[in-house]
Amino acid sequence: MALILTFLGKGGSGCSTVAIATAKKLATTGSRVLFLSQDSSPVLNHLWGTTLEAVPTEIEPNLKGMALKSAQLISQRWEDVKELEAKYLRSPTIKNVYGQELGILPGMDGALALDTLREYEQSKDYDVIVYDGDSALNTLRMFSIPEMMSWYVRRFQKVLTESDVGKTLAPFVQPITSAILNVSWSADDLNDTPANDILQSGKAALADGNRVAAYLVTTEDETAIAAAKYYWGGAQQVGLSVRGIIVNQGQTNALANEFEPLNLSSLPKMGGHDWQPLMDALPQFLGDSQAPKPVTIDVANRQVKVFLPGFEKKQVKLTQYGPELTIEAGDQRRNIELPSPLAGQSVKGAKFQNNYLIVSL
Amino acid sequence: MALILTFLGKGGSGCSTVAIATAKKLATTGSRVLFLSQDSSPVLNHLWGTTLEAVPTEIEPNLKGMALKSAQLISQRWEDVKELEAKYLRSPTIKNVYGQELGILPGMDGALALDTLREYEQSKDYDVIVYDGDSALNTLRMFSIPEMMSWYVRRFQKVLTESDVGKTLAPFVQPITSAILNVSWSADDLNDTPANDILQSGKAALADGNRVAAYLVTTEDETAIAAAKYYWGGAQQVGLSVRGIIVNQGQTNALANEFEPLNLSSLPKMGGHDWQPLMDALPQFLGDSQAPKPVTIDVANRQVKVFLPGFEKKQVKLTQYGPELTIEAGDQRRNIELPSPLAGQSVKGAKFQNNYLIVSL
Repeated sequence: MALILTFLGKGGSGCSTVAIATAKKLATTGSRVLFLSQDSSPVLNHLWGTTLEAVPTEIEPNLKGMALKSAQLISQRWEDVKELEAKYLRSPTIKNVYGQELGILPGMDGALALDTLREYEQSKDYDVIVYDGDSALNTLRMFSIPEMMSWYVRRFQKVLTESDVGKTLAPFVQPITSAILNVSWSADDLNDTPANDILQSGKAALADGNRVAAYLVTTEDETAIAAAKYYWGGAQQVGLSVRGIIVNQGQTNALANEFEPLNLSSLPKMGGHDWQPLMDALPQFLGDSQAPKPVTIDVANRQVKVFLPGFEKKQVKLTQYGPELTIEAGDQRRNIELPSPLAGQSVKGAKFQNNYLIVSL
Repeated sequence: MALILTFLGKGGSGCSTVAIATAKKLATTGSRVLFLSQDSSPVLNHLWGTTLEAVPTEIEPNLKGMALKSAQLISQRWEDVKELEAKYLRSPTIKNVYGQELGILPGMDGALALDTLREYEQSKDYDVIVYDGDSALNTLRMFSIPEMMSWYVRRFQKVLTESDVGKTLAPFVQPITSAILNVSWSADDLNDTPANDILQSGKAALADGNRVAAYLVTTEDETAIAAAKYYWGGAQQVGLSVRGIIVNQGQTNALANEFEPLNLSSLPKMGGHDWQPLMDALPQFLGDSQAPKPVTIDVANRQVKVFLPGFEKKQVKLTQYGPELTIEAGDQRRNIELPSPLAGQSVKGAKFQNNYLIVSL
C-alpha cells in the first residue's frame, strides 16, 4: 500500500509546483514515488521540464511520472468491461463497441483517476503516490466517490425493493436474468458485487489519514487564503484528512493561528530551476497523521462530532429528510449513517464549537 | 436567447477577473447581463467585493450575479424528476427520497450548470450570460455534454436493438412498461423523449458561434500561453467557437502570429479596485463571430476539414473503429457522423495543413 498525497488550493497558487517538489523530496530521501497528474495540458510538462507520458515513466531515480489521459484510460477500462460481459452474458452485446470510440463525459475523469490511483496503490511498486489534481473542487469530488456511490446504492436499493415498482418488476428479474446471463443471479446479490467491494475498500482507505492525506496550499494573497480555508472544510465533508498548510512564496506565521491545529510550512520563491530550497522547506510528510477525524460518533453520550473548520455556523446546514443525518457545507453533502441505538433518532440540538459541529440525538 | 460567453485559461491566469470585467463592460453599455460562477469557494466573492447568492441577484444596474451551488440545484431538479415520475409511473417510487439528501457525484456539477445555462438562456431576461467555470477542463467537458450524450444514445441504442440481448428483452418491454407506466410506451420512442430534444437543441446552440463563444485568457508566462493554445484546440474538439485571446497584464503582440486568426486584446494590470481600464481594453464581444467552424464536411470533394489549432500532427489521432470517424486530441474524443454518401467509407488519406486536419474519404 502506498501513501496517497494531494494538494488543495486556489488555481494559480502553486499546487502543482508544491506537488512536484514533494515528489522530488520524497524520492531523494528513499521513497519510491509516482507522480500522477490530472492535467493533460502542457502545463505540467513545462513545470517538470519533461513530457509526462500516459504510463509511469522514470523521471529521476525513485521517481516516476504520468499524466492521466482519460481518452486512453477509458479505452483500457472498456476492455475490462467487455471481459466481464463475455463472462456473464450469454450473448455479448457491446463487443462491437470499441474503447477507442468512447467519448469522455463530465465525471469520467474523476472516476478513471480514482480507479488508476487504486490500481497503483495496490501495485506494491510505490511507497508514495503524489496526485496533482486539475482543481480543488474536482479533487474533492473525486475522493467523495466511494462514500457517495455507496450512499446512492444503499438508499435506492432499499427504496426500490420496498416499492410497488420493485415488487412489480420482481417476477421479471428471474426470467430476464436466466435468459441473458450465464450465471444464476438475483437482485439480492447486489451487495456482493466486486463493485461494492471496491467502494468499501475505497471508503476504508480514505478514512485512514495514514493512507490518503491532503495539504492545503496558499500564497500570501487573502483570496488564496480564503480559498484554502474553504477547501479545508470541504475536505472534511469528503472524509479526506488534511495534515498541514503550505504557504507558497511567503512567510506568514500569522496564518498559524487561523489554521490551527495544522502544521504550517513556508516555501521560498523558486529561483530558476533549483528545486532544492523548496524541497528543504517542505514538511516531512511521512509519519503518523495527527489530523482530526472528520466524524466521531459517541453512542454512549448520543453525540455526533463533525470537524468542519473554515465554515461559520450559518454556512452549515444540518437536515434529517432521509433516514440518515445530512450535513451540507461547502457545496457538498455528507450523509452520516448512525449506528443502531442512534439510527432513526431525531436531532435534539446542535452547536458549533472550536471548528466542530456537535449534534445531540 | 442570450449570448453565452466563457473564458478558457490556465488556473491563476485571471479568467475570473476577465469574466468580471466583461460582465461589467457589457452591463454599462446596455446589455442585460447574468454572471454565473461555477466556483462556490469565497474566491469570486473576494473578486466581486460582494457575496454571490445561489439565485440571480442584482450587483449593478443591468448586471446580476449568481454562484452555482450544486447541492441546492440538485434538490430543485429532483423535484422535477419526482413530478415526471408521478406523471408517468403508476406507483411513484422515489417520492420518499428527498432532494435535500442527494449527494454530488463527479460530473453532476457540469450537468447541473449546463441545465442552468439553458434555463437562463431561454428566459429572455438576459442578453448575455457570462459563465465563469471552475477550470478550463471542466468547462470543456461541460460544453461537450450535448454532443457526447447524443453519441452514446445513438451508438448504444443501435447496438442494443440489434443484439441478442435486445431481442431477448423485447418481449418483456411491453408487459413491464404497461405494469409500471401510466402511458403506453415502447423502446422505439427513445428518440422522441424531451431529454433528446434538449440534447439536440444544446448541440444546435453550441454549433452557433453567435450563441455560445469562448475567449482564451493568458498571461505573458510561457506556461500559461502553452495552456491557452491547448485549450484552443480542446474547444474545437467540443465544437465551442473561440473568438479571441485576451492577454492579462501584458503587452504581447508577438502572440498575435501564434494565435492567428484570433483577435488579440491586452489588458493592463489592475490598480486597486478600478475596473475601468480593464473594461476599456476588452474586445467588443457583441457582433458576428468570425471564428472558423470546428468541422466542415465537403461531400462533393469527399473531404472532412477539422480545425485543430494548437496541436501538432503527432498529438492528433484519427481512427475508424466504430461506424463514425473518431478524432482524438487534447484528451478529448470527437465522433463525426458522416452524411449518407460518405457514411461507412474508409479514410483514404489525412494531412495537417494550417491548423486544419484534412481527411479524404
